[in-house]
Amino acid sequence: MAERRISSIDGKLAEEFAIPSHVEDVKEKMADFAMRHTEAGRRVVLITSGGTKVPLESRTVRFLDNFSSGRRGAASAEYFIESGYAVIFLHRHRSLYPYTRMFLTINMLDALQFKVTDGTAGNPSDVVVDQQMLPNIVKVLKQYQEVKEGGLLLPIEFNTLSEYLHLLKAAAQALHPIGSKAMFYLAAAVSDFYIPASEMPEHKIQSSNGPLQLSLNMVPKILSPLVKDWAPQAFVISFKLETDESILLDRACRALDTYRHQAVVANVLDSRRGQVVVVTPETQVELRLTEEEVQKGVEIEERIVSNLTSAHTKFINPVSLHLPET
Amino acid sequence: MAERRISSIDGKLAEEFAIPSHVEDVKEKMADFAMRHTEAGRRVVLITSGGTKVPLESRTVRFLDNFSSGRRGAASAEYFIESGYAVIFLHRHRSLYPYTRMFLTINMLDALQFKVTDGTAGNPSDVVVDQQMLPNIVKVLKQYQEVKEGGLLLPIEFNTLSEYLHLLKAAAQALHPIGSKAMFYLAAAVSDFYIPASEMPEHKIQSSNGPLQLSLNMVPKILSPLVKDWAPQAFVISFKLETDESILLDRACRALDTYRHQAVVANVLDSRRGQVVVVTPETQVELRLTEEEVQKGVEIEERIVSNLTSAHTKFINPVSLHLPET
Repeated sequence: MAERRISSIDGKLAEEFAIPSHVEDVKEKMADFAMRHTEAGRRVVLITSGGTKVPLESRTVRFLDNFSSGRRGAASAEYFIESGYAVIFLHRHRSLYPYTRMFLTINMLDALQFKVTDGTAGNPSDVVVDQQMLPNIVKVLKQYQEVKEGGLLLPIEFNTLSEYLHLLKAAAQALHPIGSKAMFYLAAAVSDFYIPASEMPEHKIQSSNGPLQLSLNMVPKILSPLVKDWAPQAFVISFKLETDESILLDRACRALDTYRHQAVVANVLDSRRGQVVVVTPETQVELRLTEEEVQKGVEIEERIVSNLTSAHTKFINPVSLHLPET
Repeated sequence: MAERRISSIDGKLAEEFAIPSHVEDVKEKMADFAMRHTEAGRRVVLITSGGTKVPLESRTVRFLDNFSSGRRGAASAEYFIESGYAVIFLHRHRSLYPYTRMFLTINMLDALQFKVTDGTAGNPSDVVVDQQMLPNIVKVLKQYQEVKEGGLLLPIEFNTLSEYLHLLKAAAQALHPIGSKAMFYLAAAVSDFYIPASEMPEHKIQSSNGPLQLSLNMVPKILSPLVKDWAPQAFVISFKLETDESILLDRACRALDTYRHQAVVANVLDSRRGQVVVVTPETQVELRLTEEEVQKGVEIEERIVSNLTSAHTKFINPVSLHLPET
């Protein structure tokens, strides 16, 4: 029964969601990345981040989207790297990016100024960053350059739901060989609905035809084959975002029950920056920032990552749980 | 009949699309901006740019969107300023922005490097732009700073369709006093469909309820009251994007016929960067870049703006058409 469901999801993926042409190349890149870092003693986390685009037309003018700036995924990537992980960052094109996210609220040209380097006529001006506008730039640029030199971050982009689904499957297969050393941190906001290619009009829907009726199918629950088939030894974290707090924990528990993965990070839209609950089959741990911490610029992602990396350690070495503390 | 339609659009706007709380402040700012520049002898163009977001839930997780990076609007703003216009840039939050758009294809942190200014211990490093990565930065930064000093660009942001509609109405009313000196360059990709607030669920739609049926109403055609009522003396340009070239010019002519404005810039999705047709009641002028021009970095927006600013001159001074050339 379970196996039938898995193969039917795999079949659906192949039939109804266009396969990106570069998926095999990307899979190889991810597998190499994972193997190299595992051999160097690092664990590897696959972070998904940003919303998915669901086209309404095959030559797409209109699409359905999910609210997500990609802030949580981008911030988490930084904390995972700080914790010693290598990160595959599977993110929506133009969503927030680790380190670079600091530029979000600023027009870069407002933060640049001319500085004449010497008196030589014809010598071009330096363009320098105004460090009053970007007070953290020295620290962040250093971190970014270290991460780049260490090859600790592998960015992979998606745009549509189809690309997301196929690239996630490829990632799961690419990380299979490293077993429990792999973590999946599925923070992307993935659409639950889509229009199958066969039912999609080719051209832009004409408004002169009157009001629009859309009939959307349910997206196959890819977490199911991911956990059971593609990366069965990995440590898998999904996210649950609701706007209605009263149903949140119930949904989170139900997801764990259905997919049998390790944890759900549950959060409510309005309070997601300061408060989440990490739900496992045995525990519900609330992580919450105080007002003071928020004002100091502490980020909830630091707490989430700290909680999950500890849990990942125990997951890899379950026996150490029973050793006496020294 | 026509008047009934106008007032019914106005009524619909007020009833079914939430009014942004800052709309009156923005209107005053736009009116001041327009008056100041008109008195200084400049014409004013209102550019709309980027796609609109149509929420599916009132606490929005999901939304409908329109494909648009905002490239056309942002590039056009620069050429209008070069042509002596002052620009109100009504754009989608985080869509491309004039001048800053040069950073689109680059990770800014890849284009920055440290430069130690002197040997003094503890003296902080300068962070400078690598001009090999951003070869135009000196030129663009100079332009940007001049525009800022001259106060030639007034940026206004929208996110949702509701914000767009109300802010465009406010802009039209704010520009009414300057009459034919105002141009409307409506390049935003505006949704044709929406879900009225009264039919919208409050909370995130649950996927466990099965497939999704969406019923979308048609967005009122705001061009109609804009041309007839809110800014009747202005020079108004709309845009028509199709994926099917065979219906493009017919749609453009039909729009001119319906709304009685001055021109439609018609373009096809796949070729829009190199080719458009400027359609007026009397003429259809094709603007097209050669391969060579594309490679040199010439932009079609330069041609569009040049065509329209000339037409605007004739529109303001129709009598000069009959003067002998000197």
